[in-house]
Amino acid sequence: MSGPGPSNSLTDVEGLRVGHVTMAGDGYLTGTTVVLGPDAGMVAGADVRGGAPGTRETDLLDPSAAMERINAIVLTGGSAFGLAAADGVANELADRGIGFRVGSGDREVVPIVPAAVLFDLGRGGTFRATPDAETGRLAVRAALAGSTPEQGCVGAGTGAAVAHLKGGVGTASIVLDDGTTVAALVVVNAIGSPVDPLTGALSGARLLHRDDVDALIVPAAEESAAVLEAARPRGPVRDQPFDAQVLKNTTVGVIATDATLTKAQCRKLAGIGHDGLARTVNPVHTLLDGDSLFGLSTERRPPPDPVDLHEILCAAGDLVSRAVIRAILAATGTRTEAGYWPAYTDLAPSAVGRYPDPSQGISETEEQP
Amino acid sequence: MSGPGPSNSLTDVEGLRVGHVTMAGDGYLTGTTVVLGPDAGMVAGADVRGGAPGTRETDLLDPSAAMERINAIVLTGGSAFGLAAADGVANELADRGIGFRVGSGDREVVPIVPAAVLFDLGRGGTFRATPDAETGRLAVRAALAGSTPEQGCVGAGTGAAVAHLKGGVGTASIVLDDGTTVAALVVVNAIGSPVDPLTGALSGARLLHRDDVDALIVPAAEESAAVLEAARPRGPVRDQPFDAQVLKNTTVGVIATDATLTKAQCRKLAGIGHDGLARTVNPVHTLLDGDSLFGLSTERRPPPDPVDLHEILCAAGDLVSRAVIRAILAATGTRTEAGYWPAYTDLAPSAVGRYPDPSQGISETEEQP
Repeated sequence: MSGPGPSNSLTDVEGLRVGHVTMAGDGYLTGTTVVLGPDAGMVAGADVRGGAPGTRETDLLDPSAAMERINAIVLTGGSAFGLAAADGVANELADRGIGFRVGSGDREVVPIVPAAVLFDLGRGGTFRATPDAETGRLAVRAALAGSTPEQGCVGAGTGAAVAHLKGGVGTASIVLDDGTTVAALVVVNAIGSPVDPLTGALSGARLLHRDDVDALIVPAAEESAAVLEAARPRGPVRDQPFDAQVLKNTTVGVIATDATLTKAQCRKLAGIGHDGLARTVNPVHTLLDGDSLFGLSTERRPPPDPVDLHEILCAAGDLVSRAVIRAILAATGTRTEAGYWPAYTDLAPSAVGRYPDPSQGISETEEQP
Repeated sequence: MSGPGPSNSLTDVEGLRVGHVTMAGDGYLTGTTVVLGPDAGMVAGADVRGGAPGTRETDLLDPSAAMERINAIVLTGGSAFGLAAADGVANELADRGIGFRVGSGDREVVPIVPAAVLFDLGRGGTFRATPDAETGRLAVRAALAGSTPEQGCVGAGTGAAVAHLKGGVGTASIVLDDGTTVAALVVVNAIGSPVDPLTGALSGARLLHRDDVDALIVPAAEESAAVLEAARPRGPVRDQPFDAQVLKNTTVGVIATDATLTKAQCRKLAGIGHDGLARTVNPVHTLLDGDSLFGLSTERRPPPDPVDLHEILCAAGDLVSRAVIRAILAATGTRTEAGYWPAYTDLAPSAVGRYPDPSQGISETEEQP
């Protein structure tokens, strides 16, 4: 019977490492997350469904483009400024001799580092307090240190918000019956609401793994009003220029498997992952969101037969849903000079907490008041 | 306050007409639905998200392609054979002088008729009993006769199935606060399940309009088992060649508005409509589905400002969800020599029926036993 892998996180896909750099305080509320592939690279595809994306190297992921493998994916705050973090990742990897080999020297490599950004500018108080190239270098070193990725307000999720609630990083994994591992890591920063407007419950709760199901219930009536107020979609508002509201949201993430997939199959993996986003956030993929997902294959297992591929693809949607919910549950209420973003668990403590097995990785919520 | 239009159907968008041709019996269980635009044409875009689509003229809908307006959309059973229905639609329209003018003669027009097919071959007993060009001509005449479109097992939905349940045609509309009408019509024929695996309730029930909400509840415990069995995803199965299972599913449909949109905006309308599909069917957009949606603009109202456009796009997702649910509720259990497809309402009568206002257009379900 399939179930989550040992850490219920992206690093259950053998060969992947995740590094967060969290930048909070002194005007900052942002950060960078890097997903590092095996040294030999990994196959990748992208599906950009939002209307206002900020990306790098996604054209190279088209199945008809050259370059069969990439080295890392960067997810980062800082809007378009944050793309600089990918420069640092590329340089750090090249210093270590990791990348596409273009010459005979040890360091004559070009690391291929696609990236997707999310908007968090100014949430820490200072508009241009963003990740830079050094942040990217530090994220690579954090990834190489190698531990199960933290969830919540860390890395690229440090400054994330979903509607008026605090967003963050979430991750989940599943081991299919045949032993294939599939996992997702997302950074939830959406204009839309993650909450059922009728009850205040998290919309995708039914999609959690069966071991998690008892954990999420409809909040008590006295809590629902506050949740529904904070979960109303964040704009657009008519009293501000519309263009200034574009780029302010975006859920970014990766879905990965150890099965060997082609670039085109990786793109499909990302594409069906967006369905998991649709099931947990509404609206999503609007002109104000830059929602971008990457599909990754570490090629540690053979290519799936068509039925196994179907199961990997179906898993992608549910993994993204679970990762979104876990991100929201792991987020902590955050106040800066620029504003206050309550956590879902702050507003609806009665809706969460009865986990049959805290080691499943959602125990962060126990830190909530 | 926004709410459904007068008929809660696609024809609430002024200028649109819908014609169904239903072919059932004598080996047939299929049909064709045509959506006819104003005589001057309508703006259109497409978003094909399924892995196994069957379409016609979708390349012309690319924003960079020529041809600013189209004349009709054909949704049809019969898999790739059913594309012939679009030939009949084109000829019937040309006979009436409707189409893109290429000469000075009254009939020197080329009607532009994009189409998307769904698989229902053999469900009526005879594999090649499919819609043909004459079916398309009849569908145009039915559309010109002009009435509120029927839902359920009619037109392209005649042979549709969702998981192991009967599928069909569903439609819904909304009039936004500023008076803009947005509406959807879908034909639900998916490999995935429309049912919450925990309860047997329809997954998207929460997305119905608030006037509909009391209508859908969790079925009684003694009914849930039968519903869950019939709602298990329909394959793929390992004891048949995978290729033979491709093309056997597909949800097709349109989302339309009377606001003036560009071709690119129509494509975005279709794209965000797919989120409504994700919220009601799981899995969806797989390699075994051909899910294709069209976005349409009849240009009866001015171009929306950006905030109004955002609201039109957000409405698209929820309209598709509502149309899917209404299709499933309107479907009737169907038996042929090839098989039996029970209706959701056959298996879970306790889950439906308490409509506060039957004139909202879901009263078809009252015909169920």
